Amino acid sequence: MSVTSKRIVLASRPSGPVTHENFRLENKELGAPVAGEVLIKVTAMSLDPYMRGRMDDAKSYAAPVEVDGVMEGGAVGEVLESKADGLAPGDKVFGMTGWCDHAIMRAKELRKLPNDIPETTALGVLGMPGFTGWYGLTQIGQPKKGETLVVAAATGPVGSMVGQYAKHKGLRVVGIAGGEKKCKHAVEHFGFDECLDHRTFEDAKDARTKIAAACPDGIDIYFENVAGTVLEGVLPNLNVFARVPICGMIAYYDGAASAERYDLPKLWRTLLVQRAVAHGFIISDHWDMFPEFLKDAAPLVANGTIKFTEDVAEGLENAPDAFMSMLKGGNFGKQIVKVA
Amino acid sequence: MSVTSKRIVLASRPSGPVTHENFRLENKELGAPVAGEVLIKVTAMSLDPYMRGRMDDAKSYAAPVEVDGVMEGGAVGEVLESKADGLAPGDKVFGMTGWCDHAIMRAKELRKLPNDIPETTALGVLGMPGFTGWYGLTQIGQPKKGETLVVAAATGPVGSMVGQYAKHKGLRVVGIAGGEKKCKHAVEHFGFDECLDHRTFEDAKDARTKIAAACPDGIDIYFENVAGTVLEGVLPNLNVFARVPICGMIAYYDGAASAERYDLPKLWRTLLVQRAVAHGFIISDHWDMFPEFLKDAAPLVANGTIKFTEDVAEGLENAPDAFMSMLKGGNFGKQIVKVA
Repeated sequence: MSVTSKRIVLASRPSGPVTHENFRLENKELGAPVAGEVLIKVTAMSLDPYMRGRMDDAKSYAAPVEVDGVMEGGAVGEVLESKADGLAPGDKVFGMTGWCDHAIMRAKELRKLPNDIPETTALGVLGMPGFTGWYGLTQIGQPKKGETLVVAAATGPVGSMVGQYAKHKGLRVVGIAGGEKKCKHAVEHFGFDECLDHRTFEDAKDARTKIAAACPDGIDIYFENVAGTVLEGVLPNLNVFARVPICGMIAYYDGAASAERYDLPKLWRTLLVQRAVAHGFIISDHWDMFPEFLKDAAPLVANGTIKFTEDVAEGLENAPDAFMSMLKGGNFGKQIVKVA
Repeated sequence: MSVTSKRIVLASRPSGPVTHENFRLENKELGAPVAGEVLIKVTAMSLDPYMRGRMDDAKSYAAPVEVDGVMEGGAVGEVLESKADGLAPGDKVFGMTGWCDHAIMRAKELRKLPNDIPETTALGVLGMPGFTGWYGLTQIGQPKKGETLVVAAATGPVGSMVGQYAKHKGLRVVGIAGGEKKCKHAVEHFGFDECLDHRTFEDAKDARTKIAAACPDGIDIYFENVAGTVLEGVLPNLNVFARVPICGMIAYYDGAASAERYDLPKLWRTLLVQRAVAHGFIISDHWDMFPEFLKDAAPLVANGTIKFTEDVAEGLENAPDAFMSMLKGGNFGKQIVKVA
């Protein structure tokens, strides 16, 4: 069997905000799988903030996507044809296929998925984003019962894992999200104690005041995934011995970056005076712990302790729009693209 | 016995650089020790950068010195009169007496010193500064053989402990110090691999280039005790998984603070991309580990593996001058004031 794959490539690197001109939809003849490979029909793909970083040619923790190369990304799909032991047509798999509707992958690059849980969870709550939240919280955040945690993008797949897992461990959890609807969802669906709408933050000082009011005992863990005004509102509220796992900074990805109140000396002073830790991590360094994560978190997802919310865009061709919207906080829950 | 103590009090809080007007020498009648107390004749007192922070009325990890209160500080001395078990006239002790020539202290606030090692080591290499270097390096820095460490104030009591202990553990050690003479001393006396004169740094970019040249394999540990241009030159040279224990930032203490190249977004990006840790610590949180430090470091001092250099000012009345000079890097080695 030989199929044509529809795929989205990086047409040009963005200068500032991402635009349609940075993407191009094209067809590619795939050929047929050879020994050790399988042909996959992609059913759903993941859109994640880290992909914005891959569009730039800057030094980062991973190589950038090449211009004219397929956009990087994880996806779930169904095996159509297999030349590999252990995988058969009909099997559901996860793999880093990129933004496309069909792919030939080496079997060892794929993870076979169980049949008893929706496959799209492998893109979100039980995939890279959920693992990111779990790892950063448990390994760097070191949560202790009774402490206070703040996490932004509270209804996203990382933030909702962090907040729900922290609740599960007995912490006070304050979320931050964009808009009343998301804040309500964080409290009512995900069980956060409180959720602040960052659109009501007039500036860093106002953010600081509102965050302080929601955290009467200060902040012991700030799980950083957005940066910007939220970060500047959080920093003055950190408690002694606070931990700040840093997994992302979506507010800074599109080039816009103002840090009016906190400069380097002020941040340094906060870290020293509060004996705080700021600790960057990249989840791809820690795949060895993924089985432990699944063992811990999958039962919590299965029994409803940890819930998940998905935002589904229809059709590969709509991935760029969904991606651009997500970078502005337009998604509601884990953003996926239904491909087939 | 009742004695008059000469002491130096905080006459006013500095606005910007410290001046003579901020200090006042006065006499105080001490009375006599009561049960549990001893009268001490101070022989030498310590001058340390942290004292600058105590002069301000800002929120910090310790309460500020009150205006008209005696300047805070550690000192060594000899017991003149004892109303406490375990201490007898002639015993050498260390205690937080403040800037004075006589003090009455509770015995339990004092540490009795051994007779076989110069008592002033309790102010430097085997006291708070040495312990600060040892703790930050071993507990946060996590040094591994073959790695590269950078530390500034290389000939000071913290920096020289950090560098020498790191050499002892098999690291490449690059010091930074002010002036050719100190740099030569760091290499020839303390055994650093290299030492850069920060007075030759034209700006942060130049610092970055010179530090990069001295660290061909990048920087795994940056022991932060100065901040400023050195910090900004170091940050772009951090390796993946770098550790930055932060114990001080003398460059920022006097109010002057420019961070032209690094703002918060840029620092945050460095921590994330390099999966680096910035971890503030205050040594007074960790006195429980002091016996372990002494057990490890005292033999290394005794056998000459770890050397120390002292800069001695004569006379209590000269402490303000010595202190102001130290804040500008004018000291050569651990700054002490010989009181009697």
